[in-house]
Amino acid sequence: MDAVLRQSKAVCPFLKKASPATLRALSTASRSPAAAPEISSALIAASSPCGGALSKLQLLAGRCPVMGKAMAVQATRVGTSRAANANMGYRGVAASLSAAFSTSAAATAPTGAHGLHHAAARTCPRASASASSATRTARLHTSRSQEARAVDGPVFNDKVHIPTGVPKMPKAAKAAAGKNVNSGVAAAAPAQMQTKFDYEGFYEKELDKKHKDKSYRYFNNINRLAKDFPRAHMAEKEDRVTVWCANDYLGMGSNSKVLRTMHETLDEYGAGAGGTRNISGHNRHAVHLEETVARLHAKEAALVFSSCYVANDATLATLGSKMPGCVILSDSLNHASMIQGIRHSGTQKIVFRHNDVEDLEAKLAALPLNVPKIIAFESVYSMCGSIGPIEAICDLAEKYGAITFLDEVHAVGMYGPSGAGVAEHLDFEAHRQGRPSGTIMDRVDIITGTLGKAYGCVGGYIAGSHQLVDMIRSLAPGFIFTTSLPPATMAGARAAIEYQMEYAGDRRLQQLHTRAVKESLAARDIPVIPNPSHIVPILVGDAEVAKQASDMLLRDHQIYVQSINYPTVPVGQERLRITPTPGHVKEFRDRLVTAVDSIWNELGIRRTSDWARQVPGGFLGVGAPPAAENNPLWTDEQLGIAQAVQELKQQKPQDGLTEALLAQEKQSRVAASV
Amino acid sequence: MDAVLRQSKAVCPFLKKASPATLRALSTASRSPAAAPEISSALIAASSPCGGALSKLQLLAGRCPVMGKAMAVQATRVGTSRAANANMGYRGVAASLSAAFSTSAAATAPTGAHGLHHAAARTCPRASASASSATRTARLHTSRSQEARAVDGPVFNDKVHIPTGVPKMPKAAKAAAGKNVNSGVAAAAPAQMQTKFDYEGFYEKELDKKHKDKSYRYFNNINRLAKDFPRAHMAEKEDRVTVWCANDYLGMGSNSKVLRTMHETLDEYGAGAGGTRNISGHNRHAVHLEETVARLHAKEAALVFSSCYVANDATLATLGSKMPGCVILSDSLNHASMIQGIRHSGTQKIVFRHNDVEDLEAKLAALPLNVPKIIAFESVYSMCGSIGPIEAICDLAEKYGAITFLDEVHAVGMYGPSGAGVAEHLDFEAHRQGRPSGTIMDRVDIITGTLGKAYGCVGGYIAGSHQLVDMIRSLAPGFIFTTSLPPATMAGARAAIEYQMEYAGDRRLQQLHTRAVKESLAARDIPVIPNPSHIVPILVGDAEVAKQASDMLLRDHQIYVQSINYPTVPVGQERLRITPTPGHVKEFRDRLVTAVDSIWNELGIRRTSDWARQVPGGFLGVGAPPAAENNPLWTDEQLGIAQAVQELKQQKPQDGLTEALLAQEKQSRVAASV
Repeated sequence: MDAVLRQSKAVCPFLKKASPATLRALSTASRSPAAAPEISSALIAASSPCGGALSKLQLLAGRCPVMGKAMAVQATRVGTSRAANANMGYRGVAASLSAAFSTSAAATAPTGAHGLHHAAARTCPRASASASSATRTARLHTSRSQEARAVDGPVFNDKVHIPTGVPKMPKAAKAAAGKNVNSGVAAAAPAQMQTKFDYEGFYEKELDKKHKDKSYRYFNNINRLAKDFPRAHMAEKEDRVTVWCANDYLGMGSNSKVLRTMHETLDEYGAGAGGTRNISGHNRHAVHLEETVARLHAKEAALVFSSCYVANDATLATLGSKMPGCVILSDSLNHASMIQGIRHSGTQKIVFRHNDVEDLEAKLAALPLNVPKIIAFESVYSMCGSIGPIEAICDLAEKYGAITFLDEVHAVGMYGPSGAGVAEHLDFEAHRQGRPSGTIMDRVDIITGTLGKAYGCVGGYIAGSHQLVDMIRSLAPGFIFTTSLPPATMAGARAAIEYQMEYAGDRRLQQLHTRAVKESLAARDIPVIPNPSHIVPILVGDAEVAKQASDMLLRDHQIYVQSINYPTVPVGQERLRITPTPGHVKEFRDRLVTAVDSIWNELGIRRTSDWARQVPGGFLGVGAPPAAENNPLWTDEQLGIAQAVQELKQQKPQDGLTEALLAQEKQSRVAASV
Repeated sequence: MDAVLRQSKAVCPFLKKASPATLRALSTASRSPAAAPEISSALIAASSPCGGALSKLQLLAGRCPVMGKAMAVQATRVGTSRAANANMGYRGVAASLSAAFSTSAAATAPTGAHGLHHAAARTCPRASASASSATRTARLHTSRSQEARAVDGPVFNDKVHIPTGVPKMPKAAKAAAGKNVNSGVAAAAPAQMQTKFDYEGFYEKELDKKHKDKSYRYFNNINRLAKDFPRAHMAEKEDRVTVWCANDYLGMGSNSKVLRTMHETLDEYGAGAGGTRNISGHNRHAVHLEETVARLHAKEAALVFSSCYVANDATLATLGSKMPGCVILSDSLNHASMIQGIRHSGTQKIVFRHNDVEDLEAKLAALPLNVPKIIAFESVYSMCGSIGPIEAICDLAEKYGAITFLDEVHAVGMYGPSGAGVAEHLDFEAHRQGRPSGTIMDRVDIITGTLGKAYGCVGGYIAGSHQLVDMIRSLAPGFIFTTSLPPATMAGARAAIEYQMEYAGDRRLQQLHTRAVKESLAARDIPVIPNPSHIVPILVGDAEVAKQASDMLLRDHQIYVQSINYPTVPVGQERLRITPTPGHVKEFRDRLVTAVDSIWNELGIRRTSDWARQVPGGFLGVGAPPAAENNPLWTDEQLGIAQAVQELKQQKPQDGLTEALLAQEKQSRVAASV
């Protein structure tokens, strides 16, 4: 009950402002309904459990433009007949209040990581049910967690409920409560209030929830070995495994040029930066790294943060809160860092369906042209591998006066002739020839990226116009009030970016290995979620089974693939997420595919053909007919294999086209070296 | 005007929910005040510019428990006389709305970095005025920026104001607006709406503001040299300076044990972690570092974050949003990271006066015992060097059923027999003997610290009970969705902590150098803000002069001391913040003091005696009589100099007591080595 009141307080300025004493005073019965002629007698009969005797609080509620409407809805629903449940008065009204908000809440309800509500509602029946129940107990857009905070406080009697969770209980109010002749309220309330909050018990309850819904996470101790990439040892050094799920996509974390640069910088400039950027933490490493990032994305300027989580959070929160009346349009599968940034901005958020340009346009068209708008989206969505329609979104942004905020976190280093990401890749030739002007990348207003995935280090950044970057630099607390990254980290990251700007061999090989793995898994009817990127998500569809499969891979096959469960993906979409690298040579690939195949047998996990049979049209693309949008972004031409593929296709090689191609390349390398 | 409406929409669920079309329809005049008999005619006369003709919106406003009250206040204020300004109707009511909220807003108004509103209001007349003006345009607690977002939209006529900044303008509404016979509203609104928002112009305006109020920051390019600590080079390698303001307080960034550990880890485990903690980014370095941090603070568990900014933000936001009805009591000088965390929690915040235990108790006592409460405070406040009353706050927490959240960021490595911080220092002997049970540190519930200051690396952490840490690990997006720190960083930080746990010589020397600097500056009447810690803040009191002094130190004396201006400190409290280290030997100290003295002359900056003369009782302690609370936290006994000090006091050494002591020590070291 107090959860309901707390919720009401969160949305209603009157309730929020009113002290418990005032509320208690107001909830004493008043016998003069005549004072409020605009409240119908039907409403009174329905909403007042004691039949006609309205409390002052109920009177006030009737006058409130929101609550009054909710009460009217309630009255209509129950008709003039007496409410069966004597306790329904306040509770019923509160429920109506929720109902009255449900429309707006559906548009702006805060979402969990990766926009779960939205994504889940579209694709998963189980999640869909839970999403609609979430709508029923709708909440306004706040920076609070999206989880309901139901706490069952004792209900003292049928009519009056003391808000035990509500702060501020001045002495005068306590005295007044003591003098209250009506009921045991006064006695009961202080009794409950005299118990201290049980913090440890609360933490335990929160953890219990995670255990119960199988979202509790057990971390695996994985020590990736620089000299034996992509292998790692577990807690014990002799306990070796092959890592198949790291985001060090290109193995730059063990690149000798990067490591040499870091060693030298460490010796010369020490372990840490020693301060914030403003106070002794600004140095040549920061200057050079930001210059390099700006050059990579062909932008005027760049700014480096502790992580791209911080970069996204700080930038969106700052822009959204500063620009007057700003609206942020957010892809439903956006990463948690963007969702938090938008939430922290406190501004209006409109979620559009994942990669749905029509839905986005409808939402943009409904906004006045002069309102500042940010379209926030990703290039490669890390958990399903889908790719955002960057060009179409730039077109819309131009048409409707919005700016684009593109997260290239999983794409930088991986796509384009310089490794600048998908936006660069889309104008491959222009960028290869050094002509960025007028390209899609040029049209994107803000690009954010990471130094911790394909570049193998840690940290994040934004790139954009001079003024934009200078404004974020000047205003974002998450940038201003934090220690700079260490000189060696910044120097190493810069070396990694420059290495990948010069050399495309790693990302080419990464793409070929990805193709090989996808083909081999497909050949064994393993349900890879189809996509055009370097991500290989294998659908499991159950949290426990996914964890079991991951555990078995590790224990029985010395293969590390973390299971991806809620909240990273919606319930019902649990998966294994595989990330091939240039280091995943045939030996590793064969072992992986064999291991996955045997576990799929052992655990009886659905295969692609099962999904096709059981779910008409397939699920998440698994079991659906092939779609052009899932053709690899790196074309055969870009990979330099167009001719070889034509030739090999005739031969119908047993291990699949790409494996044959890789074997051919290996042979020619061996021949060349002899 | 639309800023006011936007603000109203932010606090009022009705306005928030209502579409512009509805609002416009409601703001057409109604000539039947009889429909609302409860609204007094005085109110009508006062609030309706056209004398008695109330719009439906005004009618509804009269019925709203908040707005109605505000309008009544307004009516009382202007009496029955007609409002002189024909435009005051809506505007006046909106002002009243603000007034009606001002009480609660004063308690919960969001503050800038370092709780400026509160701090400023207490100490600085100029800031005080601005704080009270902030109260006048009061806002509820939101996660928006604390700055007013005043944008002057055109006002179309005296009565009806189209909310141009407000999104959603459905076609029906547009059509309706077009048909509106009343005024040029319909024609004017679309014209304004047809202009795209000028993003670059907006960024520029924001930057102009920073330039105008002198808070625009110019970063100095400072490359701290590991082999020449505490020296650095500027952009050019031959351009050398002495760094006097870094937070690498103990020089651990160039400690050979730390660097060796990092080199080895880099070679063995590579440049980056390769993933989040859940997905391949958990390793022995994380496990060992967290074990070491937990041991350092004698807590059950610890959790490492990208930075302590993220640790504070994520932990407070998670706790505050999860615990039902949680109230966070926050010291008025708390760091920006805590202020953001509290804001992001969306829960109620109560600011207590800096280090004021009585004020805190009054605020705790006003809350019911059973309400979950977090007292968030620091041990060493970095910009003034004051130290929090940890024991008294623990007592209050126990008495009122709160938990304590202690930020030891500027204290870890620096205080206590193991370098665990001020909380450890307060029971020096008990901890020296390895008996943490029942100590003050033991009683603190959550300790947060950094690896980027005295430990010379980068990163932050929390330490607390098993359940607490596990809950934050499981629920905080800022922890879950970010790449782990690199193995080498974690290994280096652990080496630094363990080094300082074993060896107290660095922090002892740091303290002696701090004393020496403070004494020498005091001897020259330089206004050091008195405090018991290792921070040496010199009061300037003007942004431009502080920057000038800093620039002159750098240019003319090759000494780098960043000026500290708004928003890091309140306007009028600008300062130079000096941080001595064990590396700041006499040669450097002498140069510093001479340089500061000459610049104080050149720029005519006020000295301690000037402050004493001009501000009765002194300002920020400068010019005030000595206070016991500013005696160094490290006592003579703890530093092992009690006897030597007694002897030296007789001699009244010319260079000051501590310089004489340091000279003595140096002599005996030289003698021992011969």
